[in-house]
Amino acid sequence: MPDPVCIVGGTGALGFGLALRLGRAGVPIVIGSRDGARAQEAADRARWRVPAGNFGGRENPGAVRSAGLVILSVPFRSQSETLTNLKPALGQDQLLVDATVPLAAAVSGKATRTLGVWQGSAAQQAQEMVPEGVRVVSAFHTVSAALLTDLEHELDEDVLVCGNRREDKARVSELVDRIDGLRAVDCGPLEMARIVEQFTPLLISINVRNKVRAGIKITGLHT
Amino acid sequence: MPDPVCIVGGTGALGFGLALRLGRAGVPIVIGSRDGARAQEAADRARWRVPAGNFGGRENPGAVRSAGLVILSVPFRSQSETLTNLKPALGQDQLLVDATVPLAAAVSGKATRTLGVWQGSAAQQAQEMVPEGVRVVSAFHTVSAALLTDLEHELDEDVLVCGNRREDKARVSELVDRIDGLRAVDCGPLEMARIVEQFTPLLISINVRNKVRAGIKITGLHT
Repeated sequence: MPDPVCIVGGTGALGFGLALRLGRAGVPIVIGSRDGARAQEAADRARWRVPAGNFGGRENPGAVRSAGLVILSVPFRSQSETLTNLKPALGQDQLLVDATVPLAAAVSGKATRTLGVWQGSAAQQAQEMVPEGVRVVSAFHTVSAALLTDLEHELDEDVLVCGNRREDKARVSELVDRIDGLRAVDCGPLEMARIVEQFTPLLISINVRNKVRAGIKITGLHT
Repeated sequence: MPDPVCIVGGTGALGFGLALRLGRAGVPIVIGSRDGARAQEAADRARWRVPAGNFGGRENPGAVRSAGLVILSVPFRSQSETLTNLKPALGQDQLLVDATVPLAAAVSGKATRTLGVWQGSAAQQAQEMVPEGVRVVSAFHTVSAALLTDLEHELDEDVLVCGNRREDKARVSELVDRIDGLRAVDCGPLEMARIVEQFTPLLISINVRNKVRAGIKITGLHT
Protein backbone atom coordinates (compact mmCIF):
# COMPACT_ATOMS: atom_id res chain seq x y z
CA MET A 1 0.00 0.00 0.00
CA PRO A 2 1.36 3.47 -0.84
CA ASP A 3 2.34 5.89 1.94
CA PRO A 4 -0.43 8.11 3.28
CA VAL A 5 -0.77 11.56 1.76
CA CYS A 6 -1.92 14.55 3.78
CA ILE A 7 -3.97 17.22 2.02
CA VAL A 8 -3.90 20.51 3.90
CA GLY A 9 -6.97 22.37 2.69
CA GLY A 10 -8.60 19.08 1.78
CA THR A 11 -11.96 20.58 2.74
CA GLY A 12 -11.67 23.02 -0.21
CA ALA A 13 -12.69 22.25 -3.78
CA LEU A 14 -9.31 21.32 -5.29
CA GLY A 15 -8.05 19.53 -2.17
CA PHE A 16 -11.24 17.51 -1.85
CA GLY A 17 -11.16 16.57 -5.54
CA LEU A 18 -7.56 15.38 -5.18
CA ALA A 19 -8.53 13.43 -2.05
CA LEU A 20 -11.30 11.63 -3.95
CA ARG A 21 -9.16 10.77 -6.96
CA LEU A 22 -6.11 9.68 -4.95
CA GLY A 23 -8.30 7.77 -2.50
CA ARG A 24 -9.95 5.92 -5.35
CA ALA A 25 -6.45 5.08 -6.64
CA GLY A 26 -5.70 3.33 -3.35
CA VAL A 27 -3.69 6.07 -1.63
CA PRO A 28 -4.52 6.50 2.09
CA ILE A 29 -5.59 10.13 2.57
CA VAL A 30 -5.48 12.32 5.67
CA ILE A 31 -7.49 15.49 5.16
CA GLY A 32 -6.12 18.41 7.15
CA SER A 33 -8.00 21.53 8.22
CA ARG A 34 -7.62 24.24 10.84
CA ASP A 35 -10.80 22.77 12.27
CA GLY A 36 -10.50 19.06 13.12
CA ALA A 37 -14.26 18.54 12.99
CA ARG A 38 -14.48 19.98 9.46
CA ALA A 39 -11.61 17.70 8.40
CA GLN A 40 -13.45 14.67 9.75
CA GLU A 41 -16.66 15.76 8.09
CA ALA A 42 -14.81 16.03 4.73
CA ALA A 43 -13.29 12.57 5.27
CA ASP A 44 -16.81 11.21 5.87
CA ARG A 45 -18.04 12.82 2.65
CA ALA A 46 -15.06 11.34 0.77
CA ARG A 47 -15.75 7.88 2.20
CA TRP A 48 -19.36 8.17 1.11
CA ARG A 49 -18.21 9.01 -2.46
CA VAL A 50 -15.41 6.41 -2.57
CA PRO A 51 -16.44 3.63 -0.17
CA ALA A 52 -13.30 1.58 -0.87
CA GLY A 53 -11.05 4.55 -0.01
CA ASN A 54 -9.05 5.03 3.16
CA PHE A 55 -9.83 8.55 4.43
CA GLY A 56 -9.09 10.22 7.73
CA GLY A 57 -9.54 13.80 8.89
CA ARG A 58 -7.48 15.71 11.48
CA GLU A 59 -6.44 19.16 12.54
CA ASN A 60 -3.58 20.38 10.35
CA PRO A 61 -0.52 19.71 12.57
CA GLY A 62 -1.55 16.14 13.38
CA ALA A 63 -2.53 15.51 9.76
CA VAL A 64 0.84 16.76 8.54
CA ARG A 65 2.79 14.63 11.05
CA SER A 66 1.02 11.50 9.81
CA ALA A 67 2.25 11.70 6.20
CA GLY A 68 5.54 11.84 4.32
CA LEU A 69 4.01 13.81 1.52
CA VAL A 70 1.87 16.88 2.18
CA ILE A 71 -0.22 18.61 -0.47
CA LEU A 72 -0.88 22.27 0.32
CA SER A 73 -4.10 23.36 -1.34
CA VAL A 74 -5.23 26.59 0.28
CA PRO A 75 -6.15 30.01 -1.12
CA PHE A 76 -3.14 32.29 -1.60
CA ARG A 77 -4.33 34.65 1.14
CA SER A 78 -3.99 31.77 3.67
CA GLN A 79 -0.77 30.22 2.36
CA SER A 80 1.66 32.21 4.48
CA GLU A 81 -0.31 31.88 7.73
CA THR A 82 -0.88 28.16 7.14
CA LEU A 83 2.83 27.55 6.59
CA THR A 84 3.74 29.50 9.72
CA ASN A 85 1.36 27.35 11.75
CA LEU A 86 2.65 24.14 10.16
CA LYS A 87 6.33 24.87 10.80
CA PRO A 88 6.56 22.87 14.04
CA ALA A 89 4.78 19.91 12.40
CA LEU A 90 6.86 19.72 9.21
CA GLY A 91 9.95 17.58 9.60
CA GLN A 92 13.09 16.57 7.74
CA ASP A 93 12.57 14.68 4.50
CA GLN A 94 8.94 15.66 4.19
CA LEU A 95 7.84 16.75 0.77
CA LEU A 96 5.47 19.69 0.46
CA VAL A 97 3.54 19.78 -2.80
CA ASP A 98 2.37 23.35 -3.23
CA ALA A 99 -0.72 23.94 -5.36
CA THR A 100 -1.17 27.58 -4.42
CA VAL A 101 -1.96 30.16 -7.10
CA PRO A 102 -1.42 33.86 -6.33
CA LEU A 103 -4.67 34.96 -7.99
CA ALA A 104 -5.40 38.68 -7.73
CA ALA A 105 -8.76 37.54 -6.36
CA ALA A 106 -6.92 37.19 -3.04
CA VAL A 107 -7.04 41.00 -2.78
CA SER A 108 -10.43 41.43 -4.45
CA GLY A 109 -8.85 41.55 -7.93
CA LYS A 110 -9.72 39.52 -10.99
CA ALA A 111 -9.28 35.75 -11.09
CA THR A 112 -7.72 36.18 -14.53
CA ARG A 113 -4.82 38.12 -13.02
CA THR A 114 -2.09 37.26 -10.55
CA LEU A 115 -0.22 39.09 -7.84
CA GLY A 116 3.53 39.46 -7.99
CA VAL A 117 5.18 37.39 -5.30
CA TRP A 118 8.56 38.72 -4.21
CA GLN A 119 10.16 35.27 -4.22
CA GLY A 120 8.90 34.71 -7.78
CA SER A 121 6.01 32.37 -7.10
CA ALA A 122 3.84 31.00 -4.31
CA ALA A 123 5.86 27.78 -4.44
CA GLN A 124 9.12 29.67 -3.93
CA GLN A 125 7.53 31.58 -1.06
CA ALA A 126 6.60 28.19 0.44
CA GLN A 127 10.18 26.95 -0.01
CA GLU A 128 11.43 30.01 1.87
CA MET A 129 8.99 29.42 4.74
CA VAL A 130 9.32 25.69 5.43
CA PRO A 131 11.93 24.37 7.89
CA GLU A 132 15.29 23.38 6.47
CA GLY A 133 15.26 19.88 5.00
CA VAL A 134 11.67 20.14 3.80
CA ARG A 135 11.55 20.31 0.00
CA VAL A 136 8.83 21.95 -2.03
CA VAL A 137 7.50 20.68 -5.34
CA SER A 138 4.93 22.69 -7.29
CA ALA A 139 2.01 20.91 -8.97
CA PHE A 140 -1.76 20.64 -9.57
CA HIS A 141 -2.43 24.18 -10.87
CA THR A 142 -4.19 23.29 -14.11
CA VAL A 143 -6.59 20.53 -13.13
CA SER A 144 -10.17 21.67 -12.58
CA ALA A 145 -11.44 21.02 -9.06
CA ALA A 146 -14.93 20.38 -10.45
CA LEU A 147 -13.67 17.75 -12.89
CA LEU A 148 -11.62 16.02 -10.19
CA THR A 149 -14.68 15.90 -7.96
CA ASP A 150 -16.91 14.56 -10.73
CA LEU A 151 -15.76 10.96 -10.55
CA GLU A 152 -17.79 10.06 -13.65
CA HIS A 153 -15.62 12.44 -15.71
CA GLU A 154 -12.74 10.77 -17.52
CA LEU A 155 -9.71 12.99 -17.09
CA ASP A 156 -7.28 13.39 -19.97
CA GLU A 157 -4.74 16.07 -19.19
CA ASP A 158 -1.33 16.86 -17.75
CA VAL A 159 -0.07 17.98 -14.36
CA LEU A 160 2.91 20.31 -14.65
CA VAL A 161 5.50 19.57 -11.97
CA CYS A 162 8.36 21.89 -10.93
CA GLY A 163 11.03 21.19 -8.32
CA ASN A 164 14.72 21.34 -7.67
CA ARG A 165 15.38 17.62 -7.09
CA ARG A 166 14.73 14.98 -9.65
CA GLU A 167 13.83 12.34 -7.03
CA ASP A 168 11.26 14.63 -5.39
CA LYS A 169 9.59 15.26 -8.74
CA ALA A 170 9.65 11.52 -9.46
CA ARG A 171 7.84 10.89 -6.17
CA VAL A 172 5.15 13.44 -7.01
CA SER A 173 4.89 12.20 -10.60
CA GLU A 174 4.40 8.66 -9.36
CA LEU A 175 1.47 9.97 -7.28
CA VAL A 176 0.00 11.93 -10.20
CA ASP A 177 0.26 8.96 -12.53
CA ARG A 178 -1.82 6.85 -10.11
CA ILE A 179 -4.81 8.98 -11.08
CA ASP A 180 -6.37 7.66 -14.30
CA GLY A 181 -6.09 10.16 -17.13
CA LEU A 182 -3.48 12.41 -15.54
CA ARG A 183 0.12 12.53 -16.71
CA ALA A 184 2.91 14.32 -14.85
CA VAL A 185 5.28 16.48 -16.92
CA ASP A 186 8.60 17.63 -15.45
CA CYS A 187 8.80 21.36 -16.17
CA GLY A 188 12.16 22.02 -14.57
CA PRO A 189 13.35 23.68 -11.35
CA LEU A 190 11.05 25.22 -8.74
CA GLU A 191 11.54 28.70 -10.24
CA MET A 192 9.47 27.57 -13.24
CA ALA A 193 6.48 27.66 -10.88
CA ARG A 194 6.33 31.40 -11.53
CA ILE A 195 5.22 30.45 -15.02
CA VAL A 196 3.09 27.42 -14.22
CA GLU A 197 1.14 29.29 -11.52
CA GLN A 198 0.08 31.74 -14.25
CA PHE A 199 -1.69 28.97 -16.14
CA THR A 200 -4.60 28.95 -13.68
CA PRO A 201 -5.78 32.51 -14.47
CA LEU A 202 -5.31 31.78 -18.19
CA LEU A 203 -7.49 28.69 -17.94
CA ILE A 204 -10.06 30.72 -15.97
CA SER A 205 -10.09 33.22 -18.85
CA ILE A 206 -10.57 30.40 -21.39
CA ASN A 207 -13.29 28.83 -19.21
CA VAL A 208 -15.26 32.07 -19.04
CA ARG A 209 -15.04 32.57 -22.80
CA ASN A 210 -15.94 29.02 -23.78
CA LYS A 211 -18.09 27.85 -20.86
CA VAL A 212 -15.81 24.86 -20.30
CA ARG A 213 -13.45 23.51 -17.66
CA ALA A 214 -10.21 23.64 -19.56
CA GLY A 215 -6.95 21.90 -18.76
CA ILE A 216 -3.50 21.70 -20.30
CA LYS A 217 -1.79 19.04 -22.33
CA ILE A 218 1.80 19.20 -23.52
CA THR A 219 2.12 17.89 -27.08
CA GLY A 220 5.13 16.15 -28.60
CA LEU A 221 6.18 14.10 -25.54
CA HIS A 222 7.10 10.49 -26.17
CA THR A 223 5.09 9.04 -23.29
CA MET B 1 -8.04 33.83 -52.55
CA PRO B 2 -7.30 35.05 -49.01
CA ASP B 3 -5.68 38.45 -48.41
CA PRO B 4 -1.89 38.52 -48.46
CA VAL B 5 -0.11 38.22 -45.12
CA CYS B 6 3.16 39.99 -44.41
CA ILE B 7 5.64 38.29 -42.10
CA VAL B 8 8.15 40.74 -40.66
CA GLY B 9 11.07 38.61 -39.59
CA GLY B 10 10.07 35.96 -42.11
CA THR B 11 13.74 35.18 -42.65
CA GLY B 12 13.97 33.89 -39.05
CA ALA B 13 13.09 30.37 -37.96
CA LEU B 14 9.53 30.93 -36.66
CA GLY B 15 8.58 33.45 -39.34
CA PHE B 16 9.89 31.22 -42.12
CA GLY B 17 8.04 28.20 -40.71
CA LEU B 18 4.80 30.20 -40.61
CA ALA B 19 5.43 31.39 -44.17
CA LEU B 20 5.79 27.80 -45.37
CA ARG B 21 2.69 26.52 -43.60
CA LEU B 22 0.49 29.49 -44.53
CA GLY B 23 1.81 29.47 -48.10
CA ARG B 24 0.99 25.79 -48.42
CA ALA B 25 -2.52 26.60 -47.14
CA GLY B 26 -2.99 28.98 -50.07
CA VAL B 27 -2.30 32.29 -48.32
CA PRO B 28 -0.19 34.74 -50.37
CA ILE B 29 2.88 35.58 -48.29
CA VAL B 30 5.12 38.65 -48.34
CA ILE B 31 8.29 38.06 -46.36
CA GLY B 32 9.66 41.25 -44.82
CA SER B 33 13.21 41.91 -43.71
CA ARG B 34 15.40 44.93 -43.02
CA ASP B 35 17.38 43.68 -45.99
CA GLY B 36 15.29 43.36 -49.17
CA ALA B 37 17.72 40.91 -50.76
CA ARG B 38 17.53 38.59 -47.75
CA ALA B 39 13.73 38.78 -47.91
CA GLN B 40 13.77 37.77 -51.58
CA GLU B 41 16.21 34.98 -50.88
CA ALA B 42 13.87 33.63 -48.15
CA ALA B 43 10.92 33.87 -50.55
CA ASP B 44 12.93 31.83 -53.09
CA ARG B 45 13.68 29.20 -50.48
CA ALA B 46 9.99 29.07 -49.52
CA ARG B 47 8.96 28.68 -53.18
CA TRP B 48 11.43 25.84 -53.52
CA ARG B 49 9.88 24.10 -50.50
CA VAL B 50 6.25 24.84 -51.47
CA PRO B 51 6.17 25.20 -55.28
CA ALA B 52 2.43 25.88 -55.34
CA GLY B 53 2.79 28.73 -52.86
CA ASN B 54 2.67 32.44 -53.60
CA PHE B 55 5.73 34.02 -51.95
CA GLY B 56 7.25 37.46 -52.30
CA GLY B 57 10.07 39.15 -50.43
CA ARG B 58 10.54 42.89 -49.78
CA GLU B 59 12.14 45.35 -47.43
CA ASN B 60 10.01 45.76 -44.28
CA PRO B 61 8.08 48.99 -45.03
CA GLY B 62 7.03 47.92 -48.53
CA ALA B 63 6.19 44.44 -47.29
CA VAL B 64 4.01 45.85 -44.52
CA ARG B 65 2.15 48.23 -46.87
CA SER B 66 1.24 45.32 -49.13
CA ALA B 67 -0.77 43.38 -46.52
CA GLY B 68 -3.74 43.94 -44.24
CA LEU B 69 -2.42 41.51 -41.68
CA VAL B 70 1.18 41.71 -40.48
CA ILE B 71 2.84 39.02 -38.37
CA LEU B 72 5.73 40.35 -36.29
CA SER B 73 8.20 37.56 -35.62
CA VAL B 74 11.47 39.10 -34.48
CA PRO B 75 13.68 38.56 -31.43
CA PHE B 76 12.63 40.66 -28.42
CA ARG B 77 15.81 42.73 -28.62
CA SER B 78 14.73 43.97 -32.08
CA GLN B 79 11.00 44.38 -31.42
CA SER B 80 11.07 48.00 -30.32
CA GLU B 81 13.42 49.20 -33.07
CA THR B 82 11.48 47.29 -35.73
CA LEU B 83 8.20 48.86 -34.62
CA THR B 84 9.72 52.33 -34.61
CA ASN B 85 10.89 51.82 -38.18
CA LEU B 86 7.53 50.39 -39.25
CA LYS B 87 5.45 53.25 -37.84
CA PRO B 88 5.19 55.20 -41.11
CA ALA B 89 4.23 52.04 -42.99
CA LEU B 90 1.53 50.79 -40.63
CA GLY B 91 -1.90 52.22 -41.40
CA GLN B 92 -5.43 52.36 -40.06
CA ASP B 93 -7.22 49.03 -39.81
CA GLN B 94 -4.08 46.98 -40.15
CA LEU B 95 -3.78 44.10 -37.76
CA LEU B 96 -0.42 43.38 -36.18
CA VAL B 97 -0.02 39.83 -34.91
CA ASP B 98 2.77 39.91 -32.38
CA ALA B 99 4.69 36.68 -31.76
CA THR B 100 7.47 38.24 -29.71
CA VAL B 101 8.66 36.57 -26.52
CA PRO B 102 10.68 38.58 -23.99
CA LEU B 103 13.18 35.79 -23.31
CA ALA B 104 15.95 36.70 -20.91
CA ALA B 105 18.25 35.41 -23.66
CA ALA B 106 17.81 38.89 -25.21
CA VAL B 107 20.19 40.17 -22.54
CA SER B 108 22.39 37.07 -22.38
CA GLY B 109 20.13 35.41 -19.79
CA LYS B 110 18.55 31.98 -19.87
CA ALA B 111 15.99 31.01 -22.51
CA THR B 112 13.94 29.47 -19.70
CA ARG B 113 13.44 32.89 -18.11
CA THR B 114 11.75 36.07 -19.27
CA LEU B 115 12.33 39.76 -18.80
CA GLY B 116 9.74 41.95 -17.15
CA VAL B 117 8.21 44.30 -19.69
CA TRP B 118 6.85 47.50 -18.17
CA GLN B 119 3.65 47.36 -20.22
CA GLY B 120 3.05 43.78 -19.05
CA SER B 121 4.06 41.89 -22.17
CA ALA B 122 5.81 42.31 -25.50
CA ALA B 123 2.38 42.41 -27.18
CA GLN B 124 1.25 45.26 -24.95
CA GLN B 125 4.50 47.08 -25.68
CA ALA B 126 3.72 46.64 -29.37
CA GLN B 127 0.20 47.99 -28.85
CA GLU B 128 1.68 51.07 -27.19
CA MET B 129 4.10 51.64 -30.08
CA VAL B 130 1.91 51.21 -33.17
CA PRO B 131 0.04 54.17 -34.68
CA GLU B 132 -3.51 54.75 -33.46
CA GLY B 133 -6.01 52.57 -35.28
CA VAL B 134 -3.62 49.65 -35.63
CA ARG B 135 -4.70 46.78 -33.40
CA VAL B 136 -2.42 44.16 -31.92
CA VAL B 137 -3.27 40.51 -31.46
CA SER B 138 -0.85 38.15 -29.70
CA ALA B 139 -0.30 34.64 -31.09
CA PHE B 140 2.13 31.90 -32.21
CA HIS B 141 4.25 31.62 -29.05
CA THR B 142 3.95 27.90 -28.47
CA VAL B 143 4.43 26.36 -31.91
CA SER B 144 7.92 25.04 -32.56
CA ALA B 145 9.67 26.75 -35.48
CA ALA B 146 11.39 23.48 -36.34
CA LEU B 147 8.10 21.56 -36.50
CA LEU B 148 6.49 24.26 -38.65
CA THR B 149 9.43 24.12 -41.03
CA ASP B 150 9.37 20.32 -41.20
CA LEU B 151 6.47 20.02 -43.63
CA GLU B 152 6.40 16.24 -43.22
CA HIS B 153 5.51 16.70 -39.56
CA GLU B 154 1.79 16.51 -38.80
CA LEU B 155 0.99 19.28 -36.38
CA ASP B 156 -1.54 18.64 -33.61
CA GLU B 157 -1.59 21.54 -31.19
CA ASP B 158 -3.16 24.86 -30.25
CA VAL B 159 -2.29 28.49 -30.91
CA LEU B 160 -3.21 30.72 -27.99
CA VAL B 161 -4.67 34.02 -29.20
CA CYS B 162 -5.08 37.18 -27.10
CA GLY B 163 -6.58 40.48 -28.20
CA ASN B 164 -9.01 43.17 -27.20
CA ARG B 165 -11.48 42.85 -30.08
CA ARG B 166 -13.40 39.74 -30.86
CA GLU B 167 -13.40 40.38 -34.63
CA ASP B 168 -9.61 40.81 -34.70
CA LYS B 169 -9.14 37.52 -32.91
CA ALA B 170 -11.60 35.87 -35.27
CA ARG B 171 -9.52 37.08 -38.23
CA VAL B 172 -6.34 35.66 -36.75
CA SER B 173 -8.08 32.44 -35.73
CA GLU B 174 -9.35 31.98 -39.26
CA LEU B 175 -5.75 32.24 -40.45
CA VAL B 176 -4.48 29.80 -37.81
CA ASP B 177 -7.19 27.28 -38.63
CA ARG B 178 -6.08 27.24 -42.28
CA ILE B 179 -2.95 25.42 -41.15
CA ASP B 180 -3.65 21.69 -40.83
CA GLY B 181 -3.35 20.49 -37.25
CA LEU B 182 -3.44 23.90 -35.59
CA ARG B 183 -6.41 25.16 -33.61
CA ALA B 184 -6.80 28.74 -32.38
CA VAL B 185 -7.97 29.23 -28.79
CA ASP B 186 -9.27 32.61 -27.64
CA CYS B 187 -7.47 33.33 -24.36
CA GLY B 188 -9.03 36.70 -23.65
CA PRO B 189 -7.87 40.32 -23.82
CA LEU B 190 -4.39 41.40 -24.91
CA GLU B 191 -3.23 41.66 -21.29
CA MET B 192 -3.37 37.83 -21.13
CA ALA B 193 -0.30 37.89 -23.42
CA ARG B 194 1.76 38.45 -20.28
CA ILE B 195 0.84 34.87 -19.39
CA VAL B 196 0.91 33.32 -22.87
CA GLU B 197 4.37 34.76 -23.63
CA GLN B 198 5.64 32.82 -20.60
CA PHE B 199 4.72 29.53 -22.26
CA THR B 200 7.71 29.70 -24.59
CA PRO B 201 10.37 29.51 -21.85
CA LEU B 202 8.36 26.78 -20.12
CA LEU B 203 8.26 24.75 -23.33
CA ILE B 204 11.99 25.34 -23.78
CA SER B 205 12.51 23.93 -20.28
CA ILE B 206 10.37 20.89 -21.12
CA ASN B 207 12.19 20.44 -24.44
CA VAL B 208 15.60 20.42 -22.76
CA ARG B 209 14.46 17.87 -20.18
CA ASN B 210 12.71 15.53 -22.61
CA LYS B 211 14.60 16.09 -25.86
CA VAL B 212 11.37 16.94 -27.67
CA ARG B 213 9.72 19.89 -29.38
CA ALA B 214 6.76 20.39 -27.12
CA GLY B 215 3.61 22.36 -27.79
CA ILE B 216 0.41 23.13 -25.91
CA LYS B 217 -3.09 21.82 -26.18
CA ILE B 218 -6.03 23.07 -24.17
CA THR B 219 -8.23 20.20 -23.02
CA GLY B 220 -11.97 20.28 -22.46
CA LEU B 221 -12.93 22.56 -25.38
CA HIS B 222 -15.92 21.50 -27.41
CA THR B 223 -14.32 22.03 -30.83
